[in-house]
Amino acid sequence: MASDRQFISRAQAQGPFYVGIDLGGTNIKAGVVDDLGRSLSWHSIPTNPDNGPEDGAKRMGQLALAVIEMAGLTSKDIARAGLGSPGTMDIPKGMLLEPPNLHVWQNFPIVSRVEHHCGLPLTFANDADAAAYGEFWVGSGRDFDSLVMFTLGTGIGCGIIVHGTSIVGENSHGAECGHIIIDYHENARLCPCGQTGHLEAYASATAVTKRTEEAIAAGRRSTIAKRIEAGEEFTPRMLDQEAEKGDALALELILDTAMYLGVGMVNLMHTIDPTGVILGGAMTFGGHETAIGRQFLDRVKQEVHKRAFPVPAQRVKIDYAALGGDAGYIGAAGLARVAHRQKTM
Amino acid sequence: MASDRQFISRAQAQGPFYVGIDLGGTNIKAGVVDDLGRSLSWHSIPTNPDNGPEDGAKRMGQLALAVIEMAGLTSKDIARAGLGSPGTMDIPKGMLLEPPNLHVWQNFPIVSRVEHHCGLPLTFANDADAAAYGEFWVGSGRDFDSLVMFTLGTGIGCGIIVHGTSIVGENSHGAECGHIIIDYHENARLCPCGQTGHLEAYASATAVTKRTEEAIAAGRRSTIAKRIEAGEEFTPRMLDQEAEKGDALALELILDTAMYLGVGMVNLMHTIDPTGVILGGAMTFGGHETAIGRQFLDRVKQEVHKRAFPVPAQRVKIDYAALGGDAGYIGAAGLARVAHRQKTM
Repeated sequence: MASDRQFISRAQAQGPFYVGIDLGGTNIKAGVVDDLGRSLSWHSIPTNPDNGPEDGAKRMGQLALAVIEMAGLTSKDIARAGLGSPGTMDIPKGMLLEPPNLHVWQNFPIVSRVEHHCGLPLTFANDADAAAYGEFWVGSGRDFDSLVMFTLGTGIGCGIIVHGTSIVGENSHGAECGHIIIDYHENARLCPCGQTGHLEAYASATAVTKRTEEAIAAGRRSTIAKRIEAGEEFTPRMLDQEAEKGDALALELILDTAMYLGVGMVNLMHTIDPTGVILGGAMTFGGHETAIGRQFLDRVKQEVHKRAFPVPAQRVKIDYAALGGDAGYIGAAGLARVAHRQKTM
Repeated sequence: MASDRQFISRAQAQGPFYVGIDLGGTNIKAGVVDDLGRSLSWHSIPTNPDNGPEDGAKRMGQLALAVIEMAGLTSKDIARAGLGSPGTMDIPKGMLLEPPNLHVWQNFPIVSRVEHHCGLPLTFANDADAAAYGEFWVGSGRDFDSLVMFTLGTGIGCGIIVHGTSIVGENSHGAECGHIIIDYHENARLCPCGQTGHLEAYASATAVTKRTEEAIAAGRRSTIAKRIEAGEEFTPRMLDQEAEKGDALALELILDTAMYLGVGMVNLMHTIDPTGVILGGAMTFGGHETAIGRQFLDRVKQEVHKRAFPVPAQRVKIDYAALGGDAGYIGAAGLARVAHRQKTM
């Protein structure tokens, strides 16, 4: 995702300063953020996961130092750094365990290695938790006391903030809400994790691809079928393009996705009862910018209103994320700030 | 449930002291608890809900004063009182909204009225949250950092504690996990709340009664059918009695209940990732004391091991509650203690 956030200059910025690093399967993004959550700099490099974790740790450390320099600062100006990473992980031990998107990076002491290469103390977080914290701090949830954020992409990430604190969990497995069960039957849809009936098996990009293939195989007429016959590879973007042009199947697949997401959202509302729920990630069908994106959000809200208890259904604020692809590094910096303040207060 | 907890004497007790009140649809139970969560006294009176909420508030106030006297204390010795009540409620406003089991007690300012009648400042909580806090403080969860507690009865109550704090929710609707959806289909089982597919529609006493009736109507042979034909009214207790004697249907219904509960538990584990999950309430089939109770707990654990992520599945501590029917008033007193300490620290 592109970033259209404006930078502030060092003269405008208010210290202390923090570095946030967002490690993804494809790219690593890092930036310097001031005490009010405003970016002074950011830069992105390819992850190159096949080069192994030590190479990745070294380049993350170098990237941190590069964005500090881009901000017109030195390491001494940085109070702390934060790293958001895909799981699974052991947060207290600073270990990456078995990240599916970084498959050769197993059982790697990522925190101590990145600290070694950048010379800064590091706060470690799940990537979806970091994104949720970014939205909570300076994004769509900036006026909330608590929030749930779903990050919709190949999988479904989730972050939960209650009274300003991430629900990390006893075993660093909190907020794995792509893997809540919305259909307990044994014949429910298969999740990429190997279990059945999970939200991610219905409402992720992987799931929507599968549901599209099934509909076409079942003989449903659609301009998507024609594009695939003509040799194009299916992507969820095709759905909003064709729905926009009036293809009924494409719209149905999008709105069914919203329905499943609404079911998952109700489960989170009946557990956390947050101020708001935020939807981010690549598979938001254009968000507020497109008619389809707005229809998607309306359908999510409709399902929530139908299924949730009346009081939270009326009061919950459901909206798209505001920080786009910057939520991860800003949130990682924000979590570093929380850790720094807890240590110095 | 009977209480077999031992009282401690005033000489053994360690102040400050707290009063806890547990308001139920049938009985009101209150007790005095010391700073270490030990009971000095308790007493129970009928709720008589049809006499209206002001009568109830007055008798709750009198009950609080009575247990203080029974403990050999005066009101001046009590730092604060706590009240656990069935929902729905508005905790910041101290209001009962629409409690299904206290149907003429609607929109009642219960906190100010009970405070008026006992002369003590009152902390207000959901009854299932209070019970969860009791187990967290001095019960099965006393060594946990976080827990989820399910209270199995006519409905399914839930309380969630993370780092010592109850998840109350933005709208006092947190931890309503009897109402998480485990089957999103429109033809899923009907919950007493009017929605479909909720955990409570599968694993509560009400649900197990319905599933028993369906099995018998479908022609399943069972000694339960014979007892009902002989004029007995069905209760879930019949299930463990007949299962103990070898009735296959009774055991199947109990173990299916455990399976559904395991599904709900996985959803909470993939959201909260707590240190442990505790099962309390009347419908625990005798708990650790009976072979059937132990089979029920084993089947819950089996479902969790099958469905949860490996790390939390291996580490989560799943057990029965330890405080029985005392968890509510002890937990309400414990939440009063938390509020008192926050104000005085």
